[in-house]
Amino acid sequence: MSAAVSTKRVYDFAEGSRDMRMLLGGKGANVAEMTRLGLPVPGGFTITTRACIDYLSAGHATPRGLDAEITRHLEALEVRVGKRLGDSTDPLLVSVRSGAPESMPGMMDTVLNLGLNDASVAGLAARTHNPRFAYDSYRRFIQMFGDVVAGVERGHFEDALSALKSARGVDQDVQLESDDLRGLVDTFKEIFRRHKGEDFPQEPRVQLDAAIRAVFESWDNRRARDYRRVNRIPDDLGTAVNIQQMVFGNTGPRSATGVAFTRNNTTGEAGEPFGEFLINAQGEDVVAGIRTPEPLVELHAHLPEAYDQLVRTMALLEKTYRNMQDVEFTIEEGQLYMLQTRNGMRSAEAMLRIAVDMVDEGLLAPGEAMVSLVAADQVRQLLLPRLDLSAMPVPAATGVQASPGAATGVVVFSADEAERRARAGESVILVRDETTPDDFHGMVAAKGILTSRGGKTSHAAIVAVGMGTPAVTGVTDLIVDEAAATLAIRDAFTVREGEWVTIDGAKGTVYVGQLSLLPPDPHNPYLERVLSWADAFRAMKVRTNADTPEDARRAREFGAEGIGLCRTEHMFGGDERLPHVQDMIMAESRDDLVAALDALRTFQIEDFIGIFEAMEGLPVTIRLLDPPLHEFLPDYTDLRIRVARAEATGVADDEAAEQLPKMERLKEVNPMLGTRGCRLGIEIPDLYRMQVAAILTAACDVKIRTGVEPIVEIMIPLVGFEDELRWLREHILDVADSVFVEQGTNVEYHVGTMIELPRAALVADEIARQADFFSFGTNDLTQTTLGFSRDDAETKFLGDYLSKGILRSNPFEHIDRAGVGKLVRMASASAREVKPKIKLGICGEHGGDPDSIHFFGAIGLDYVSCSPYRVQTARIAAAQAALQNRTG
Amino acid sequence: MSAAVSTKRVYDFAEGSRDMRMLLGGKGANVAEMTRLGLPVPGGFTITTRACIDYLSAGHATPRGLDAEITRHLEALEVRVGKRLGDSTDPLLVSVRSGAPESMPGMMDTVLNLGLNDASVAGLAARTHNPRFAYDSYRRFIQMFGDVVAGVERGHFEDALSALKSARGVDQDVQLESDDLRGLVDTFKEIFRRHKGEDFPQEPRVQLDAAIRAVFESWDNRRARDYRRVNRIPDDLGTAVNIQQMVFGNTGPRSATGVAFTRNNTTGEAGEPFGEFLINAQGEDVVAGIRTPEPLVELHAHLPEAYDQLVRTMALLEKTYRNMQDVEFTIEEGQLYMLQTRNGMRSAEAMLRIAVDMVDEGLLAPGEAMVSLVAADQVRQLLLPRLDLSAMPVPAATGVQASPGAATGVVVFSADEAERRARAGESVILVRDETTPDDFHGMVAAKGILTSRGGKTSHAAIVAVGMGTPAVTGVTDLIVDEAAATLAIRDAFTVREGEWVTIDGAKGTVYVGQLSLLPPDPHNPYLERVLSWADAFRAMKVRTNADTPEDARRAREFGAEGIGLCRTEHMFGGDERLPHVQDMIMAESRDDLVAALDALRTFQIEDFIGIFEAMEGLPVTIRLLDPPLHEFLPDYTDLRIRVARAEATGVADDEAAEQLPKMERLKEVNPMLGTRGCRLGIEIPDLYRMQVAAILTAACDVKIRTGVEPIVEIMIPLVGFEDELRWLREHILDVADSVFVEQGTNVEYHVGTMIELPRAALVADEIARQADFFSFGTNDLTQTTLGFSRDDAETKFLGDYLSKGILRSNPFEHIDRAGVGKLVRMASASAREVKPKIKLGICGEHGGDPDSIHFFGAIGLDYVSCSPYRVQTARIAAAQAALQNRTG
Repeated sequence: MSAAVSTKRVYDFAEGSRDMRMLLGGKGANVAEMTRLGLPVPGGFTITTRACIDYLSAGHATPRGLDAEITRHLEALEVRVGKRLGDSTDPLLVSVRSGAPESMPGMMDTVLNLGLNDASVAGLAARTHNPRFAYDSYRRFIQMFGDVVAGVERGHFEDALSALKSARGVDQDVQLESDDLRGLVDTFKEIFRRHKGEDFPQEPRVQLDAAIRAVFESWDNRRARDYRRVNRIPDDLGTAVNIQQMVFGNTGPRSATGVAFTRNNTTGEAGEPFGEFLINAQGEDVVAGIRTPEPLVELHAHLPEAYDQLVRTMALLEKTYRNMQDVEFTIEEGQLYMLQTRNGMRSAEAMLRIAVDMVDEGLLAPGEAMVSLVAADQVRQLLLPRLDLSAMPVPAATGVQASPGAATGVVVFSADEAERRARAGESVILVRDETTPDDFHGMVAAKGILTSRGGKTSHAAIVAVGMGTPAVTGVTDLIVDEAAATLAIRDAFTVREGEWVTIDGAKGTVYVGQLSLLPPDPHNPYLERVLSWADAFRAMKVRTNADTPEDARRAREFGAEGIGLCRTEHMFGGDERLPHVQDMIMAESRDDLVAALDALRTFQIEDFIGIFEAMEGLPVTIRLLDPPLHEFLPDYTDLRIRVARAEATGVADDEAAEQLPKMERLKEVNPMLGTRGCRLGIEIPDLYRMQVAAILTAACDVKIRTGVEPIVEIMIPLVGFEDELRWLREHILDVADSVFVEQGTNVEYHVGTMIELPRAALVADEIARQADFFSFGTNDLTQTTLGFSRDDAETKFLGDYLSKGILRSNPFEHIDRAGVGKLVRMASASAREVKPKIKLGICGEHGGDPDSIHFFGAIGLDYVSCSPYRVQTARIAAAQAALQNRTG
Repeated sequence: MSAAVSTKRVYDFAEGSRDMRMLLGGKGANVAEMTRLGLPVPGGFTITTRACIDYLSAGHATPRGLDAEITRHLEALEVRVGKRLGDSTDPLLVSVRSGAPESMPGMMDTVLNLGLNDASVAGLAARTHNPRFAYDSYRRFIQMFGDVVAGVERGHFEDALSALKSARGVDQDVQLESDDLRGLVDTFKEIFRRHKGEDFPQEPRVQLDAAIRAVFESWDNRRARDYRRVNRIPDDLGTAVNIQQMVFGNTGPRSATGVAFTRNNTTGEAGEPFGEFLINAQGEDVVAGIRTPEPLVELHAHLPEAYDQLVRTMALLEKTYRNMQDVEFTIEEGQLYMLQTRNGMRSAEAMLRIAVDMVDEGLLAPGEAMVSLVAADQVRQLLLPRLDLSAMPVPAATGVQASPGAATGVVVFSADEAERRARAGESVILVRDETTPDDFHGMVAAKGILTSRGGKTSHAAIVAVGMGTPAVTGVTDLIVDEAAATLAIRDAFTVREGEWVTIDGAKGTVYVGQLSLLPPDPHNPYLERVLSWADAFRAMKVRTNADTPEDARRAREFGAEGIGLCRTEHMFGGDERLPHVQDMIMAESRDDLVAALDALRTFQIEDFIGIFEAMEGLPVTIRLLDPPLHEFLPDYTDLRIRVARAEATGVADDEAAEQLPKMERLKEVNPMLGTRGCRLGIEIPDLYRMQVAAILTAACDVKIRTGVEPIVEIMIPLVGFEDELRWLREHILDVADSVFVEQGTNVEYHVGTMIELPRAALVADEIARQADFFSFGTNDLTQTTLGFSRDDAETKFLGDYLSKGILRSNPFEHIDRAGVGKLVRMASASAREVKPKIKLGICGEHGGDPDSIHFFGAIGLDYVSCSPYRVQTARIAAAQAALQNRTG
């Protein structure tokens, strides 16, 4: 039996179900499901994805036996509907559509009206009493077949159509007469012959086989491969091919075609179905926008029976799929036909409301809704300003949806200018061909980012997503002239520096001028419900990465349960502090060093008091100083140039002359792998001792003043050897003893480490002996495990790797499970073997990425930590991880 | 029983044996062994290393029960010899000596003549009829006890002795009379009281307990800890304490003392024992060089019976230990006493001859000799020039034995000057306070390297060892004045730039002037024998890292069985080639790129022909271009300065102006983790295609012309993902097809990869699917796994880590087994699971390090590859690894 099943490559619609999506593709499985439910679906059959893979891997040869199997199903279909393909009196016409297991909208090919030829077109005309319809269908088929199957450029056909319209003096296709179209068919056949070197095929089975092969081939076309790469769809799924009887919504006033959602896809409101239709039209006409469709409720007035049947059908589909459905339908002479159903795309607001409503309606349990109806990543959109679409603005250009949210501001062309104007209180949009790390300060200052080059993994996109700044990238219609400080959008618009544009990162659209934005609504009751479910389901805590009391407070509003990473280096900048940091670096004696550290200690105590107060007794993980010290001095090359210039001009530059020798000693070839992290703490024990004293002094102070005892976690970065942590831990315990005596009280504190070097992960059992907790620093762990300097990879070879398909995703965005993930898994297991209660968390940017969170959940980490704006996303993703890991 | 054994902390000499070295220390175990053999050993007992560890870990408290156990053994000793400690008529005197499981010469403390006090000294004088001897012994004891046990500086005692000699108008200690010494004893006791604040202890048991504690403490002194760190001896071994009856070689003309080797320790010659002795003297006198000792053979004339007994004893010891022995003996009134035996230190030549002779004598099998008598690392010394010691040169200063071999040359103080003079044909010694990577070109040019700072892991030492250049580092008596271009050695010598010095890296000595050197003897017949054993025993092949035909030929002379790493980047330098490389980098169009690559191809074909011819059909692994391209352009900062200067002066610098923009795009924050290795090959496929075409064209050419077919292994660097290798492999196969058609023949070639990123090791099973072989690049793998940029670590924090004991050794010298080693082990296992016959090798510098080779042998790698000068060492180490892994 199973051997027989395994070679079956064609399924009648009645043989499938919605569970067979991998084999039949999404479209095929859903059409089968509708057939199974007894809904009115035009007959047909599906050629499996397996057949496609076999075809492609056999060097594009049709698998043995497939032809015969198709013949059997085609003959059965002909018997069932009582029409024959190519018949000259009452021909069967079919559509041939691709349908992959994962939705790839518009990426692959479709051929409609197949089966028409010089004989059957006459039969269709006679049978429908509508020669115009028949010849219109035939000319459409020749063009589609020519374009999709035979590779004859669509432009040739369109030129001929335009020429005909000019000759007839008409504007629109519908104004052409039946005879015009009949002549056009001859012209199209001639175009086909000229470009293809052979006649347009008249034999319907030849047409069908060629169309099936074309769909198979379309799986491997450039567009499809690119789409799969960006959307992380495996290349070895293949596409199914659906052969289905054509039905026609354009046979007269009792025919129609339309699309509909079972609920409102913008607000999520339930009630009447939501959609639009056209009387006497074909499906493409709705999409093409040639005529303006009517709202779906109006259909009741035209075709009440069909409308009622449609409403009942949609209710049944929603109940069956337990999800909001997006359907396509056609009514032919009053008879409803369902052509497609699938889970509908929806806004973030609609997503949440639908989930809550469906649970309240008893359609799903909260856990099921959580997994099947909520996309964790989309939640962030609620926190971003949106474009007010009530004004119906028209985009000037469209690019890549790089980072969601809308922004409006004046155009600037350099990072410095962005910073200058932002500081003066202006809202700016930074416009560049592409951004580089040197633009970072301008990107921070900008309200939005717009580039002419680069996709979702460009530097601009990655940085913007990280900062929650709206961005549109890869707007190819944009011509950026930095020198002239102008921005041209095709030939249509020229925008000068200081003039306004508006961008919508969620849609990838660009508008000229200042458009009004709607502020985010922080109190979405549906979000609150979904988050309350999430909190009940999830096994992992969610903390935040926050370096200031403001960030800490914001994150708590979003539900953060502690700080997983407080970076102290951000406390070492600024005009007040940097001079002391530089004094520390330049110190020639221990006394100088201690004096500089004493000055810094005062600031650090303030910093930590603010954060502990904001967190009110929740755990706070503070990382001791991590970056190499040369980051706090002026750039090495700039210093060298200043000194060279001083020599050349004779005008002294004392500061540069003083700092250069120190910089010569501090500069490193690979600072990422240099004197940073715990290596600093071991080289200059006084530095870490100062930080630990400040942390614990602040904690004691807060405990005494507010009565709420902070939970302090002191985290040592970049540990690779047990002895590093042992050595530093002794210093920390020593400082703690002194502080507690001095303060007359003590606080709970723990000492732990980042696991961010491969060695640390490999010897995690040894390091665990010295650690109360581990926090996986997956950013640096990705850099060292893959040998990818993030600064260099994202601006240099990473784009090349993604476009060549060597990488499927940016490993700094989604964790590299096979490499970095393996280390995290090994380290977690071996640390717990030594110390079962060790607390394990993750504080890289992967902590806010749902895909990565799912992985961390499977390993059983105790918490993830992410930026404040991703805390809600992480709460939901953690719940989904727990639910899915529970069911396996 | 076993509980009783485990608390036994004192062993009589008669209770131990040479197998108990861990518990009794080396000295204790060997003295016990000699006792067991019935040799004449003064009686005594050993306090175990366990007691030392217990003492130290209990916060320096004597373990319970130890006192009583010592008392029991002391009383038994007193009964056996019929003397009592502190007795006023015939006192027992003892020595108290430390003895650790690993030899730590001179690192820990010894007290002689213990048991003397004001009463027993009189007894000793009466009993020996030699008051001078008695008081001389007493004053020595007070000084030794004061210095070693009580912490009274030795200088105070020495000053008093000098004052006395002046007062008496004599030069030498031996000229002092008995009464002088009696008075000196009083003076010494007074010195002790003044500095210590208490009387010199008269109670012998108090003296003994204090001395034992002092030996325990000496395990933890700075000197000992440093020694252990450098010699990789664990800190938790502890030292044993040997308490032994004193015997005296200074009681008259029938007494003597001496040291001897069972064979000549310089040449290895067997026959008469080799050593020296003094009549009527104590052991220290031989070492101190106060009198000139006589050659051992002369002892026969003085004391024939004792001499014959000594010769017989030494023969027995050599037979027992099956190793050349270094013994200490004393003859008291004609009676021979053996005080110590141990394996003797020997020169490289002696080491090899002794191994061969002992095998020929039937004392050991070759395999045993291989493991116990040959130090693989020492073999390299045979390849280095040696100092001609026949002229008895006197060192001007002494430092660290950083890199063996002797060198003589003129002093230079900068790398540039070194290069300039070397190019002019001069032999130079580069002198620096310490070297940095910027000095590299000077170090390459120099015949020897001399620094005032840094130890065996300093930059100078590591680079010198790597290049086989003699070096002496850390000569603290050196004052380097670069500005004045002079070198001062204490106040004694001043050497100006261009004047001659000579260094001996094997001894760490520095000589002023040009000394004559002995050339290395490449045809040492004993080495040939040892190598022939090695080749029979070893399981791993030994290849070499060679980039030129000259290196390849040299390595083959040393027995290399192929090239494991041929770096092509070294073929991209030089005045002829670099311009084409820069053209390639600056190419604005594909045509420009192809033209530059075509020019390079011609050179590359020549290069590879030379190497294939030199290797005559042995496998050659060629690594495609690895370093980032910006390494072939001028330094970024220099370019910026040139451009800034051109702007300031108005004098154009076209080259800099042209190269800077490219450099701006190419420069990287962390080049180690940037666009290098296979990332280059993927970004610029034409580059790797050119190299592959050149390699295979050369191979075909050699095959056609010489009839010997090269075995080509094309190696892709820095692979981390299976798809990288898959992508490049397709290009390689494609190029190969074209070349073979063009050449009308084909050659055997394989495609493999370096495993030098943690990810590559973690997914080795996936990568193995695309690879015919793996070569572990343990240099880079160490950099990424540990997060240590080698350029930065060795000049910055690594020294700090070693001196703080956080690291035991430089992980670039000896492989980090727990971290990097674990990855190599995992990768080997998982690759072999997928592809059992995959060839696995290692081509990092660890491939020439015996300790690392042992590890690679245990994993079962197929080969190691190392620099030509380390090939012989590697052959021996590989044999030792095989032998030791065989026995477990």
